[in-house]
Amino acid sequence: MRLVIIGGGAAGMSAAAQARRTDPGLEIVVLEQSEHVSTGLCGLPYFVAGLIRDASQLVAHTPEYFRQERRIDVRTGHRVEAVNASSRTVTGNIVSSRTATGNSGGGPFELRYDRLVVATGAKPVPLDVPGADRENVFYLRTVADGIRLRASLEQGTARRAAVIGGGFIGVELAEALRRWKLDVTVIEQGGRLLPAFDPWISDLVAQELRAQGVTVLTNHTVAGLESGAVQTRQGGPVAADLTVVAVGSRPDLDLLKRARPELGRTGALAVSRQLQTSLPFVWAAGDCAESRSAVTGRAAHVPLGTVANLAGRVAGEAAAGRRTEALPLAGTYLLQVFDLAVARTGLSEAEARAHGFAPVTAGVSGPVNVPVLYGTAGDVPAFEVRLTADARTGRLLGAQLAGHRDGARRIDVAAALLTRGALVRDAAGLDLGYTPPLGVARDPLVQAAQRLLSELDVSGRR
Amino acid sequence: MRLVIIGGGAAGMSAAAQARRTDPGLEIVVLEQSEHVSTGLCGLPYFVAGLIRDASQLVAHTPEYFRQERRIDVRTGHRVEAVNASSRTVTGNIVSSRTATGNSGGGPFELRYDRLVVATGAKPVPLDVPGADRENVFYLRTVADGIRLRASLEQGTARRAAVIGGGFIGVELAEALRRWKLDVTVIEQGGRLLPAFDPWISDLVAQELRAQGVTVLTNHTVAGLESGAVQTRQGGPVAADLTVVAVGSRPDLDLLKRARPELGRTGALAVSRQLQTSLPFVWAAGDCAESRSAVTGRAAHVPLGTVANLAGRVAGEAAAGRRTEALPLAGTYLLQVFDLAVARTGLSEAEARAHGFAPVTAGVSGPVNVPVLYGTAGDVPAFEVRLTADARTGRLLGAQLAGHRDGARRIDVAAALLTRGALVRDAAGLDLGYTPPLGVARDPLVQAAQRLLSELDVSGRR
Repeated sequence: MRLVIIGGGAAGMSAAAQARRTDPGLEIVVLEQSEHVSTGLCGLPYFVAGLIRDASQLVAHTPEYFRQERRIDVRTGHRVEAVNASSRTVTGNIVSSRTATGNSGGGPFELRYDRLVVATGAKPVPLDVPGADRENVFYLRTVADGIRLRASLEQGTARRAAVIGGGFIGVELAEALRRWKLDVTVIEQGGRLLPAFDPWISDLVAQELRAQGVTVLTNHTVAGLESGAVQTRQGGPVAADLTVVAVGSRPDLDLLKRARPELGRTGALAVSRQLQTSLPFVWAAGDCAESRSAVTGRAAHVPLGTVANLAGRVAGEAAAGRRTEALPLAGTYLLQVFDLAVARTGLSEAEARAHGFAPVTAGVSGPVNVPVLYGTAGDVPAFEVRLTADARTGRLLGAQLAGHRDGARRIDVAAALLTRGALVRDAAGLDLGYTPPLGVARDPLVQAAQRLLSELDVSGRR
Repeated sequence: MRLVIIGGGAAGMSAAAQARRTDPGLEIVVLEQSEHVSTGLCGLPYFVAGLIRDASQLVAHTPEYFRQERRIDVRTGHRVEAVNASSRTVTGNIVSSRTATGNSGGGPFELRYDRLVVATGAKPVPLDVPGADRENVFYLRTVADGIRLRASLEQGTARRAAVIGGGFIGVELAEALRRWKLDVTVIEQGGRLLPAFDPWISDLVAQELRAQGVTVLTNHTVAGLESGAVQTRQGGPVAADLTVVAVGSRPDLDLLKRARPELGRTGALAVSRQLQTSLPFVWAAGDCAESRSAVTGRAAHVPLGTVANLAGRVAGEAAAGRRTEALPLAGTYLLQVFDLAVARTGLSEAEARAHGFAPVTAGVSGPVNVPVLYGTAGDVPAFEVRLTADARTGRLLGAQLAGHRDGARRIDVAAALLTRGALVRDAAGLDLGYTPPLGVARDPLVQAAQRLLSELDVSGRR
């Protein structure tokens, strides 16, 4: 019995490792087009910044580790180009010579599978403007992308950089480039940065970037890339010796074109609770596949490394023959921008409204940590938490927070509550840990829930 | 309609504030025997240590604040000595002259109530050995106790201190006294420190104390206190110019002796879900009353400031006439001992067994934070998480953790799960927040749950 896994990223290697734990006798082959498996892509901006010194630190385990310690046949340099679901084969080309069996010398390959896990991830949305193929235009999706961008920075010739796109990667890249002392401009087409967050957090992030010397342009559409400048439709050119494009990503499904699996509304692969696709004997996990929201109960697309790890485990276990299912997700995002940590989980207020809920939001801001152990009030790490609930049922729908990093992980508590379908009153009555060196007696999350509960009282629902 | 609250600590003032929010027209009287209300007793060891500089920082709000901003009639220096439930009166003595209505000149008082909240807290268990009433023997329960102990330390005459009792307060006091450069010995009657934790955590705490120069004696019973020494039954005398007794506390119920309310198995006041006692029109909250465990569903006694705040709110709301109930608690304890943070929630393995569960425990240790952003592996903050589940149902029963402070608040996630009756598989599938500067891709709590899930597989239950 052979399990083939396409893609050696977080989802693919989690699937491989869990399949091995589930069935010690299974043959497991991982086909990965790059030279790296088990990569932590979330670390790429920190590698670009130079905080992660060596690209090898982006890799949790080498192919050799998986081969020797887990008996997983990892084949790097293997680019799968098609899946034939009726013959249960994958075909592709060898783009490098590093494989488990030594020098394969390139050329096409074909491999039969009994079970298949698709973990192809996502690919960056390309910028479709004149000049987008110039030199000094970068994307940041793979380790190779990171190495290329950092090499360019290490040359030290660039002084001004443009980041096109004000989402997660764009914002993290702005910080990374600023660490190289470049003049950085973030160009965002929409009205605000980080549209996945509530507007007050977008505002705080823009404020933090500006305080750190980054120019933030919203409502600016890129018209073209020229030598030394990005042309926008709205204003003059933005001077840039170097441009990074971070306008989003989409599921990488090219190799499934002929197999025609069912896609969900989100554009990612539709999967069952067992993470099986519409194709027989084919499971999927990671950025290429949908997940299910614990709040709406519906399919969602949460392209994050944490989710890829979790879903990969489930897909590997299911493909190896054990009954299991993926649990619904809260949808938890955490981001640090210079000295500001921001996080969200569940639905934003706008999303809640779009899903037909009657959202009510309330929050508190205050210290999260050690007020009594700091000299003055000015030193107290400040934090803001806002919770959103459904006025009709009193159910918690989402949490958003921003402030000092010491408070950031409070988002996990909200995620746990959302996953378990908690009411606001459950959050308002939580006995969280407290000791003066590590927190405040009235935790801001619990306080926010208590305030939200009062708001719901007004609407007659707790 | 007059609500009387006995005790102006965390529970009493939370009750008063919430009663005011619930009913703006209610007459609210708080009777407090000391000069302080709204005190954060958890901060006392840090005041003793000198980290909290001024005793006023232990007080969240002054009596004047409550009188003026909340229209709560706070009467300090009022020691209630009896409750007459049939006549609905409380009687006592004025031990100081500070009241809302000016100088009362001392003497007895009597006050009628329509509703009563008992929030008398706990009092320290006295040490019953010869010499226990000597000078330089201290307890630490009230702000006045803290002021007295710190004044003694500021005199600078003591060089050697003994702490009798190795529970939470004893351990925190050992650290506080060490900050004054004293030679400190902790004398614990039982076989280990912090018996509320699993033994591996007790061992880590003893190790940390010893590493910081504290002498730890377990299995040592105090025989008597002499000038300059504590005599034990097991060994020679422990040299001590100053002795602090921290051998536990018990509910302070003296003033209810004649009223004869029902007590629970724990020795604290038995209360309904609405926190009503067996006496008519009398509610109770805080260290004097029981709560309910979310894990066992049974009454429990959790004498913590966090719980007092939560229960006080509920008691105040209920006494003010609104339907409400106290939610069951996880029972979350968090403690920092020098450079070691430890925490627990739910049941320890021993407690789980005593409650008739079939506990299985598994855990992981590893980094909690920013491994890629540290220079070397040695700098990575290490952490250990152990989770306990019931093998028969797969239900999560408890969590214990120890290590670097950056990981300590993970206990809150476990508390949220326990409160919501989660299975281990729920914890194993949680999508927590992740970004390289603020965590690790595979959160240790989730990893521990995944490992525990594998253990449960062996026993046939997930």
